[in-house]
Formats: sequence, structure tokens, C-alpha cells
Amino acid sequence: MMRTRPLKVALLGCGVVGSEVARIMTTHADDLAARIGAPVELAGVAVRRPSKVREGIPQELITTDATALVKRGDIDVVVEVIGGIEPARTLITTAFEHGASVVSANKALLAQEGQSLYAAAEQHGQDLYYEAAVAGAIPLIRPLRESLAGDKVNRVLGIVNGTTNFILDRMDTSGAGYSEALDEASALGYAEADPTADVEGFDAAAKAAILAGIAFHTRVRLDDVYREGMTEVTAADFASAKRMGCTIKLLAICERAADGGSVTARVHPAMIPLSHPLASVRGAYNAVFVEADAAGQLMFYGPGAGGSPTASAVLGDLVAVCRNRLNDATGPGESAYTQLPVSPMGDVVTRYHISLDVADKPGVLAQVATVFAEHGVSIDTVRQQGKDGEASLVVVTHRAPDAALSGTVEALRQLDTVRGVASIMRVEGE
Amino acid sequence: MMRTRPLKVALLGCGVVGSEVARIMTTHADDLAARIGAPVELAGVAVRRPSKVREGIPQELITTDATALVKRGDIDVVVEVIGGIEPARTLITTAFEHGASVVSANKALLAQEGQSLYAAAEQHGQDLYYEAAVAGAIPLIRPLRESLAGDKVNRVLGIVNGTTNFILDRMDTSGAGYSEALDEASALGYAEADPTADVEGFDAAAKAAILAGIAFHTRVRLDDVYREGMTEVTAADFASAKRMGCTIKLLAICERAADGGSVTARVHPAMIPLSHPLASVRGAYNAVFVEADAAGQLMFYGPGAGGSPTASAVLGDLVAVCRNRLNDATGPGESAYTQLPVSPMGDVVTRYHISLDVADKPGVLAQVATVFAEHGVSIDTVRQQGKDGEASLVVVTHRAPDAALSGTVEALRQLDTVRGVASIMRVEGE
Repeated sequence: MMRTRPLKVALLGCGVVGSEVARIMTTHADDLAARIGAPVELAGVAVRRPSKVREGIPQELITTDATALVKRGDIDVVVEVIGGIEPARTLITTAFEHGASVVSANKALLAQEGQSLYAAAEQHGQDLYYEAAVAGAIPLIRPLRESLAGDKVNRVLGIVNGTTNFILDRMDTSGAGYSEALDEASALGYAEADPTADVEGFDAAAKAAILAGIAFHTRVRLDDVYREGMTEVTAADFASAKRMGCTIKLLAICERAADGGSVTARVHPAMIPLSHPLASVRGAYNAVFVEADAAGQLMFYGPGAGGSPTASAVLGDLVAVCRNRLNDATGPGESAYTQLPVSPMGDVVTRYHISLDVADKPGVLAQVATVFAEHGVSIDTVRQQGKDGEASLVVVTHRAPDAALSGTVEALRQLDTVRGVASIMRVEGE
Repeated sequence: MMRTRPLKVALLGCGVVGSEVARIMTTHADDLAARIGAPVELAGVAVRRPSKVREGIPQELITTDATALVKRGDIDVVVEVIGGIEPARTLITTAFEHGASVVSANKALLAQEGQSLYAAAEQHGQDLYYEAAVAGAIPLIRPLRESLAGDKVNRVLGIVNGTTNFILDRMDTSGAGYSEALDEASALGYAEADPTADVEGFDAAAKAAILAGIAFHTRVRLDDVYREGMTEVTAADFASAKRMGCTIKLLAICERAADGGSVTARVHPAMIPLSHPLASVRGAYNAVFVEADAAGQLMFYGPGAGGSPTASAVLGDLVAVCRNRLNDATGPGESAYTQLPVSPMGDVVTRYHISLDVADKPGVLAQVATVFAEHGVSIDTVRQQGKDGEASLVVVTHRAPDAALSGTVEALRQLDTVRGVASIMRVEGE
């Protein structure tokens, strides 16, 4: 049975994503109505530049006063695709106060202010959905929040930034250096003019915070996420990775500690075996690998960004929120009941691949091995390569705490025979 | 806020999946209660053999009278993991009539009787969830029904049977023949004593019917699904596939016709390029590739069967249904509003790889090419190989309707110079 009074949607932001949301709402209005059980109507669009021509959006819907729009009182759902912390945060809170539910694609805001936004939604009996905030069109938030609600997730390992995956994929396949691959990504529109948020891992860290909180039913703040960018990954690192049967990806990794009493969340480049499903994720695609007690190993793959894919996720949420509204119900809210603390990076246990430049003389390996042993880091393999009085030493360790590895590296730097630490990279996914 | 009166769950069937559902309900009771907002209690377990020892399940919960259990009137959710059509269908309908919602893992029943079960659920205001019916633990039904509810799905391409994927993977990697690979699958417990349902594609066809109905918001009956098993795939087919840069998978393919006016659903072995994400799905794993207008290409990967993975999917549904119940709401019901008809296999348009045994004399290729041309099937490549008066001809076509290809093959068989049609295989995923 179809309700005839339409549900009213306010759109905040009309850029790449917002314009696509508006377009699909218009062109697929009948499908959306059939799936929701009531028509949905675009009731207003808040923009910064009202004079810009926006095809398909009636001029009378355009406003520059986003606050007045969310305060109208007749809005059922506010779709926020502005990004950034303010004014998005205040607008979302105001929307809740005025009886609207919210669909957001704002990863930075959710990572930083998720807790207070959830609380505001709950206080006012409204929904807060944000599938589009992590990995674009890939259904990820809903599977973690709902499909795996009866399972225990132990690990989330994801390629959640398309720009950096494109760059690393180019370095891997063409042998290009970082700068060259970045230039190519920029030329093709995969990297922004200022790529800092992507290449330094800030974007992935926000997603890691969101994923860890949902996966482990706890609160993980952006500050809790350890972060290393991928600007220092070299062609030599890729050559080393290949020798180990690995490639290099920028990973967001959320883990439950072995004793179950804490969690960790981190973003850094890592070597992963070519046989791992994440290794074959090419170009700007994203993929997230999930390990759960009962489900085993799952992977979700797809485009992680772009106007259309992000709009697909926004519209899926819009349909769900509208259905909830017709049911006089709300979907699952924040689930942070485990209150598991977040451990620092020093507690993370993993394997390491370390390249050292050393003097090419007898006894160096013995010295280096002693330093590892003194710090309780057990060595798996060593490869030595010498030329002209200089040599390189590549050490791959067994699993060890990150703090022990840091101590080892610090001590190695003090050795006269160690000229430099060329690279340190974690080895994951084994 | 936690409700203290527990939600009561009746479990129908206590085999590999059911016992795992019961185990997790007991060992993870606190987590489930926190995620649902109320405790869940196992109120009864219907089994065929009551004397069997079932660790962790109190004897007083065991009953052989499933009908009495679902009629009790105090049951909130019935979990049906018996399988098969009857008595599962009658028990589920009876459960709805007595005020219970249902979580089912029964693909055969959903594929054959989905429409009447949905109608019964709606009539009595109850939920019918069945994530576990397709591809085990892989979240697939929920992403299609909910995450992609604002998008237009055009194609679903899936490896949805673990037994056959294991066999084909072995044939691919070891060069084994079908029988040898089947024996290995049986020895490792991946194939049942009677593997017919798997190797002849019946299991995959049931899943294809369910997926097509959900993806295209229409009704697809099991009889609507074209089905070919994989027992006739040979080592020679794999060799041919390799020469084309392909491998062979048993695929369930659901497509919207190019004009949008109809859909098709089919199960058969097919060659797919090694670069396609489905090509690297190994062993008994499942994966489903989805193409949607806005989202682009998505893939969902994981274990497609087994007690624990299937239990994970059942419990995810159980949590969702319990939450709905506390909200006095129901989740999305059947969505078949498009009423798109299902076209016959003859209308499917795809490419073909055909191996012919022919006489090794001049003019054969011209004869063969003429037959293809007369049927409107355009040839992409031909490879000829001759030895001792016999020769083989491998033809790969451009895209053509299946009916045209069938007509071509029929006519080829009439040629004196064609000794036999060694194999016909579709080429997908390009």
C-alpha cells in the first residue's frame, strides 16, 4: 500500500555527490517510491553558490540558508554531503532537534564527533546513517552493523583510500617512483591538488576509526588511530616485496587483541602476500577484508569514491531511513557497550621487514642479530648483499610488539657499522 | 535501556548449522542481548532424533513435535534450519499464524515458495529473513535488499556453490579430470555422497532464482532459471580457456535485458578472463559480483557454506528480527513491483567458445564459417589444428543470442565434414 503524502528530503551540498543524489531522486522517483512505500520529494537544496546552473534542480529549491532549511520542521530526512566538521556538525544537530533524520557521507565528522552525533540522534528519536562515509558504494557499515550483529569480528583489514591504492598499484606494475605515480594520479583526476589527506593517511585513519568502533562495539576516536603515510615507499621497497612474494598496500587495520581485552586501529603501508585477496585490488578500487569468529574471512570490494558510487550508498541509506520513518521506528543506533579500550601502537604485534645499509665487513651480521635478540625480536630470515665496501642487510622478523621493534631500530642506529635504516615495513595478511 | 523479558526463539533442526546457532546463542548470550536490547532465550529445539546427545542444549528443550513448538504462541522467532520443502513450508506458515517471525536458511524453499511465504509473513505482520539461504556467511541479501535499494542493479554474476568451485579450481590448478577432482572433493568433505544437487547446478539455480528476484524487484521462479551442470567440463576445456587468458567457473548469472523490459537467470559453466575478480576465487569459497548503475562494480566474497558461517548469517538475521520486534516494526518485505518477465535462455546474448572435430581437408573452414554467417553469429577468432587427417577447429564468437548459437550448432552437426562438436562454452565477464 502506497502512502501518498511524500517524505521530504533536504539536501545539504550539491557538488559531485549531491548533484548525483538529486539526479537519481528525480530520474528514479517511481522506483524509490515503490521501494520505500511512499514518494520522496526533494524539498530544498542548500548550496554556497546559488548562481551556478544545476541541471534538473528547480531554481526555487535552491537556498544559501542551510540553517533555515533544516529548521523548517516539515523535513523528514536531511542528506548532508558538505563534508568537513563545521557547519556540518551544527546543521546535523539542528536537523535532529527539528525532527529530521540524517544521512551523511562525512567521514571526518563521523570519526571525530560520532559519539555526540549518535547521542543527539537518540535523544531526539532520529536515525543517523552513514554508509557512504567509508569506502563509497561498498556496503560495509550495514554488513558490519547488521549482517555480522550475531558474530564476533576479530579483524578488519582494508584498502579504504582509492588515491593511494592507485599510486601504489602504478608503482608496483610500472616500477615508477612515488612522485611519478602521484603525477599520473593527479593527471587522471585520482589525486587532488593537495593530496596530503590521502597520501599521509588522514582519510584512511578517519575510516579506520569508524570501522573499528562499529566492528568491536566500542568507541575509537580519530586520535586513537596510529597513522603513517605512504610517501616514503620506494621502488626498492616494491623490489623487496616482490622477492618475498608480496606487494605493498596502504592498509587500515583494526584488531582485537589476542586476550580480547582491548583493540587497536592503525593506518600504514604494509607488505601483503600476493595470494591475499587484497593484493589483487587494482587501481582506485577499495576492498575491506573482515575476519569473524563464525563467518570466517569475508571481503567487500568496489569503487571507494566518486559521485555516482557515493550517491548509491547515500540513496540506500535514504530508502532505509524513510522506511524506518513509515514504521515509526529507528534503525540500530550506536553500539559501544563493550567499552573496550584502545591500546597504543607499541602493543600491536606483527612482523617487520627492515632494510639496513651496513659496512661490508665481517661481524656485522652478528652485531645486528645481537641487537634484535636483546630486544626480544626473533629473526625469521636475513638476506645480505654486498658491493664496494657497502652492503645491505634485509631482515624479516617473526611476530613482535611494535614497541620492541622501535627499540631495536633505535639501537641499530647507534651501531657504528649500521650506516642507515633504509626502510621499515610491516608484513600483514599472512 | 535493556528490556528484561527475553525474546523466545524456537529452533527447528539441530544439525551442523542448528547446533552452531544454539552454541553461539548460549556462549554469546550477553553480546546478543546488548546488541538487540533484550535477552534472547532458546525456548525449544525440534529434532528428529531426540536421543542424540547435544552438548550445551538442556534435554528439556528438545522435542520431536515441531508443530506443537511453533504453535506454542509465546515464540517470538522461529529459526528454520531443516532444509527441503516439507515440513519446512508448513512449519513456517504455522509460525506466522501463531505470531512468530521466521529466520530461514532454506534456499530450495525460498526459491520455490518464496512468494507464498512472503505473502503469509505480510498477512500476519511478521518478518521473513533468509540471509543464510544464499552464499552462507557472505552478506548478500541485505546489501541487495537494503544497501542497493536506491540503485538499479543490472547484473549479478556469482560463484554460489563451493563444491563445484573446489572441483573446478582443482581441475584448473592440477590439470585433473572431473572424476578425479570430484573424488578429491568427496575425500575432503567438500562433496556429498550424492553430489547431483551441486554438480548439476540445482543448488546454484535455487540461489540464482532468489538473487534475481531481489536484484530486479520481480519474481523469478526456480523453473525460470536455465541450468547446465559442470560434469562435462574437461581438461581440454581448461587448456582452451588458458590459451584465451581465461579460467572456467560455474556461474549463476542474473541479467536485466539491454532494453530493460525483461530479465534472465541462468546457471552454467563459463570461461571468464583471469583478470576478472571472480577468476581468483579459490577452493570452496563463494563470491558474487554485482553491477549497478550508480554503484558500479561490487564484489562480495567469503565462505559459502559450513556450519559456523551459515550460523553467522542466521544470527545476524535473528538480531535484526528481534530488533524489529522490539520496535513493533517489520523489515523490508517482498519487493516485486517491477513485475519484469523472465525471458527464455534463447534470448540471452553472450559470447561462445566452440570446439569442433573436423576433417582435415581444404574448404572445411569456409563451410563452417558459412553456417555461422547464415545464423547471424559473427566470428571473432578461429584457431585450426590438424594432425593425421583429423583436425580441430576452435571458434570464438562475438556476442549473439543463445537461440542463434543453438541453431548454428545444430546445422554444424549436419555437415559431413564436422565429425563432432567437442564442447560449447559461454564466455562471460568481459
